Amino acid sequence: MTEINRDISKNHFLYHFLNPESIAVFGASNSFLDNMGAMMLRNIIFGGFPKERIYPIHPKLENIQGLKAHKSILDLSEVPDLAFIILRPYNVPKVLEECGEKGVKRAIIVSGGFREFGSDGIQLSNKILNIARKYDIRFIGPNCLGVYNAFYNYPEFEDKCLNTMWIYETPERGNISIIAHSGTVASHVFWYCNRIGVKIGKSLSAGNEENIDLVDFLDYLKDDPETDVIGLYIEEIKRGKEFIDIAKKITSVKPIVAIYAGGTEAASRSIMGHTGSIAGDNKIFEAVFKETGIISTDSIKEFFYYLRTFSTNIIPNGNRLGIITDSGGCGAMMAKSAEKLGLIVPEFSDELKSKLKPYVPPVANIDNPLDLTFQFNQYNLYVKIPKAMINSGEIDAIIMYAAFGFKEILEVIKISGGKTYEEFEVPNHMLKGLYLKPIQRLVKKKEVPVFYIGPQGYSNPWVQEFIKSNIPIFDLWDMPVKCFSVLAKYSEYRKKLNPNFKI
Amino acid sequence: MTEINRDISKNHFLYHFLNPESIAVFGASNSFLDNMGAMMLRNIIFGGFPKERIYPIHPKLENIQGLKAHKSILDLSEVPDLAFIILRPYNVPKVLEECGEKGVKRAIIVSGGFREFGSDGIQLSNKILNIARKYDIRFIGPNCLGVYNAFYNYPEFEDKCLNTMWIYETPERGNISIIAHSGTVASHVFWYCNRIGVKIGKSLSAGNEENIDLVDFLDYLKDDPETDVIGLYIEEIKRGKEFIDIAKKITSVKPIVAIYAGGTEAASRSIMGHTGSIAGDNKIFEAVFKETGIISTDSIKEFFYYLRTFSTNIIPNGNRLGIITDSGGCGAMMAKSAEKLGLIVPEFSDELKSKLKPYVPPVANIDNPLDLTFQFNQYNLYVKIPKAMINSGEIDAIIMYAAFGFKEILEVIKISGGKTYEEFEVPNHMLKGLYLKPIQRLVKKKEVPVFYIGPQGYSNPWVQEFIKSNIPIFDLWDMPVKCFSVLAKYSEYRKKLNPNFKI
Repeated sequence: MTEINRDISKNHFLYHFLNPESIAVFGASNSFLDNMGAMMLRNIIFGGFPKERIYPIHPKLENIQGLKAHKSILDLSEVPDLAFIILRPYNVPKVLEECGEKGVKRAIIVSGGFREFGSDGIQLSNKILNIARKYDIRFIGPNCLGVYNAFYNYPEFEDKCLNTMWIYETPERGNISIIAHSGTVASHVFWYCNRIGVKIGKSLSAGNEENIDLVDFLDYLKDDPETDVIGLYIEEIKRGKEFIDIAKKITSVKPIVAIYAGGTEAASRSIMGHTGSIAGDNKIFEAVFKETGIISTDSIKEFFYYLRTFSTNIIPNGNRLGIITDSGGCGAMMAKSAEKLGLIVPEFSDELKSKLKPYVPPVANIDNPLDLTFQFNQYNLYVKIPKAMINSGEIDAIIMYAAFGFKEILEVIKISGGKTYEEFEVPNHMLKGLYLKPIQRLVKKKEVPVFYIGPQGYSNPWVQEFIKSNIPIFDLWDMPVKCFSVLAKYSEYRKKLNPNFKI
Repeated sequence: MTEINRDISKNHFLYHFLNPESIAVFGASNSFLDNMGAMMLRNIIFGGFPKERIYPIHPKLENIQGLKAHKSILDLSEVPDLAFIILRPYNVPKVLEECGEKGVKRAIIVSGGFREFGSDGIQLSNKILNIARKYDIRFIGPNCLGVYNAFYNYPEFEDKCLNTMWIYETPERGNISIIAHSGTVASHVFWYCNRIGVKIGKSLSAGNEENIDLVDFLDYLKDDPETDVIGLYIEEIKRGKEFIDIAKKITSVKPIVAIYAGGTEAASRSIMGHTGSIAGDNKIFEAVFKETGIISTDSIKEFFYYLRTFSTNIIPNGNRLGIITDSGGCGAMMAKSAEKLGLIVPEFSDELKSKLKPYVPPVANIDNPLDLTFQFNQYNLYVKIPKAMINSGEIDAIIMYAAFGFKEILEVIKISGGKTYEEFEVPNHMLKGLYLKPIQRLVKKKEVPVFYIGPQGYSNPWVQEFIKSNIPIFDLWDMPVKCFSVLAKYSEYRKKLNPNFKI
C-alpha cells in the first residue's frame, strides 16, 4: 500500500531509540512493589534484550535483577547506546550531565515532576534542556513510559521485543503504531488490544516532549516499513505547521487515527497537571484533523477499533453498506446507525435479489438488510451470499451477523442427545479455509471489506480464528458500522486528494 | 426501592406464560441441525421443566428428545397450561383451533411468516386472531422466540429456569427484565450479558404482538417484585396513549432503558420485513421517551451497560463527577467526555484537598481528576480517597481507574525473581472485604455510586469479584462516564416528578 524506503527509516535518529544496542538504566531496583523502575527493567530483560548489554546504574546496590550494577555511568567500559532514567526529578540533571560526559547521545527520561509541576518543574526542565544542548543529547520525555518495539532487531529476534513500559502485558506484533502523550494509552491498553486483536508494532510514550515531539515521531513512522496505521493520543501540538505538513504527507499513504483529550475545562486542567501542556480549543483541533485527513474520536474503544480496521489495508470505494443477518432486530439497528452516520444501506436491484434467492430460506425477505431468519447452510451464509453481493457492485462493504462458533453448538447438540454428522467434525482452521478464504480473496481483490459479528464473544475459538487472520470480527453490532463509516470517510479524503485514486 | 405487591403480579394473566405448569410443544423434532424447535425444546428440558408435563405434539414421531410424543393435542389427558408453537405458518391456524377445542388458554407462537410477509401473511394473522377470539386464547407472537424466566418457580427451583429461546446460553439471574421486538436482543446477547455481568430475570420476545403487546408486558413487569429495571427494544408502539401512561407509572419507581430501532429509511424497511411494523419518526419517539423519563440509546452495548448500572438501585443526587486515576490520559479523556455530556467535574475545595493530601504520593497533583501517578497503597486508593471524596459532599459519583488484579502482578514479580510479602497473599474474596466492603456501605448510605475500571478485562479474577457482587466495573473508560450521565439524567427526572425526591 505504501511506498517505503526502509533505509530512510533506519537512518532516522529515532531508529536507535527503538533499537538500541546497549542500555544504561538509572533508578531500577529489586523492590518491585514500590519501584516502577524495577518493573520497567524487568520488562526490558524479559523482552529478550542481551543481558550483557543492560547496565543498571545504582549508588548502592551491586546486583539488580541478576545483573551487575555500576555506581556511575562513568564506570562503564562501553558508551551505552541509550540511557533510561527513572530517578526522582531533582536527580535527573546530575545523571544526565554524567551521561553527556560519558558520550551518551540518547536518553529516555521517565521521571515525572517537571513542567507539569509548576515553576520549580519548569526550572528543572530548562536545566535538562541545557545539559542536552551542551552534550548534543536527544531525549524522549520527561514524564513518559518510554517505548515498546515489537520489531526490535526483527526478524533476527523473532520472539523478542523492547518494552520499557511497566505494564507486564505484551501486545501481539502488528502493523499499528501508537504515539501518545499518555503512558496509559501507550501501554495499559495492551490487555484490551490482545482481547480484540489490535496488533501493535511500536508504541511510543511522548511525555512532556521537551526535546523530541509528536512531529519527530511522525517523521519516523512515516517511512517505517513496519507501520501501516498510526494512532495518536494528543494533549498538545507544539509545532502546529510542521504537524499539519507531516500529517498530510502521512495520511496520503497511511491512515492516522487521533484522540484529542483537551478542549473542555476539567480536561484542560487535567492535562495541565499531566503533561503540563496548554490544551487548545476543540474546534482548532477539529479543523486540523479535517484538513489533514486524520480520523478522530473521543472514545478509547473506537480508537482501537478504528486502528484495527485500517490495519487490514482494505479501503472501500464508497459508503454503501450491505447487511447480512439472521436477526431482524440487529439488522434494523445497524441500518439505523449506518444512516445516522451518513452511510447508505441501498435496496438491492431485482437482479441481485434473484441471484440471492437460491441461497436464502423461503421464509426470509430478500432485501437489504438481508434477514436470513434461521439459516443453517453455513456455506451460503459465509460464501455464496457475500460473493453475490460483492460481485453485484451494489455495495462497498458488508457486515455479517451470526458468525457462530459451530463447534460449541454441535457440542450442545451432542450433550442433548441429538445427532450430528461426521462431515461437521471439521477443525476450525479447516472451516476457515472453507468459509473465509474464498471470500477473503474477493475482499482483497475488490476492496470490499466484510465485517463479521460473533455474538459468543472474543474468547470463542471460532472468533479467535478471525483474530488470528486479521479478519475484522466484533462481539456485537455497534462498532462495525462505525468502523465502516471511518473507512468510507478516509476513502473520500484520499479521493479528494487524488481524483484518480482507486485503491 | 419499589413498592411492590407480589399478589398483583401473580394474578396478572401473563404470570402463567412465565410460570406454566405444563407445556404442549408443536414443531420440535430430534433434528437439531435444521429445526429451530428442536433447540427450543432442548432448552425447555434442560432448564429443568418437569419432563412429565412437557407434551411434544408431532404427526409422525413417537419420541422426541426422550419424551413421548402425541399425534394431536386432543389426545392428551390434561389440558396444557401453555401451547408453544414452532410450525410453518400455514399449519398454525389448524393447531391453534385444536388448542382452543382442548381448552388451552395460552399460546406462544414462534412461527414467522405472518404480517411481516405481505398480504398473505396478514390474512393468516387475521385467521389466528379470530381463532383466539373464539376460544378466548391469549397469545404471544407470532414471529417471536418466546420467554426466558430465571425466576420460574423460584425460590423452590433454585437451579431452574424456563427458557424457550433457541440460544443455549443462559444468563445469570438478576433484577433486569427485557421486553423486545427482537429475539436477538432478547436472547443472542446472553453471552455478552454474562461477560459483563448483566443479570437477567425475565426476557420476553414480543414478536408481531398480534394479541399481547408491549403495554401488556410492561403492565406485568410494573408489579413484578423480581424486576427493578426494564430494558425495551422497540420497533413499533401499538397503543401510544396506554404506553405513555404505563411507562410514566413505571419510571416513577423503576428505570426503563429503551432502544427504538426505526426512524431511518433502511431501518424502517428492515422493520417492515422483520415484525411487519410501521416504524414512526424518530422525533416522535424521542418526545415519548423524554415525557416518560425513559432513558434511550441506539447502541446495544450502552443498552446493557445502562441496565446494569440501574440494576444496582443506587441513584445519585446530582451530576458532579469525581475521578480517581493513576493515569493522566485516561483522567483527561473522562473529564472531556463527562463535560461533553453535561456533567460537572468540579475542582475540589481546599478542605477536601488537604484531606486527600496524606493519601496521595508527593509527585501527584491534588485536583479533580485526581491523578495518583504510580500508587501502590491499595488501601488509600480503594478506601481512604473515595471515602474522603464521598464524605465531602462535593461529588455525586466517582470513577476509579486502576482496579488492577493484584495477584497477577504479584505472580509476575515472583516469576521475575522479585520479593513479595506474605501479607499480600490474600485471596481475592478477602481483598474484597478489605477494599470494597467499607466503601460499598458508604455508597449505599450516601447514594454516591463508585464505578471501577479494571484494564485487565472482565475475565480477570479480581474483576470477576466485582461482577459477582454487582459492583459496577468496566474494562476501559468510555462507558462509566456514559453510565453516570444516564443515572444523573434519571435522577433529575425523578426530582422533577417529585421535588422532595431524595433517593
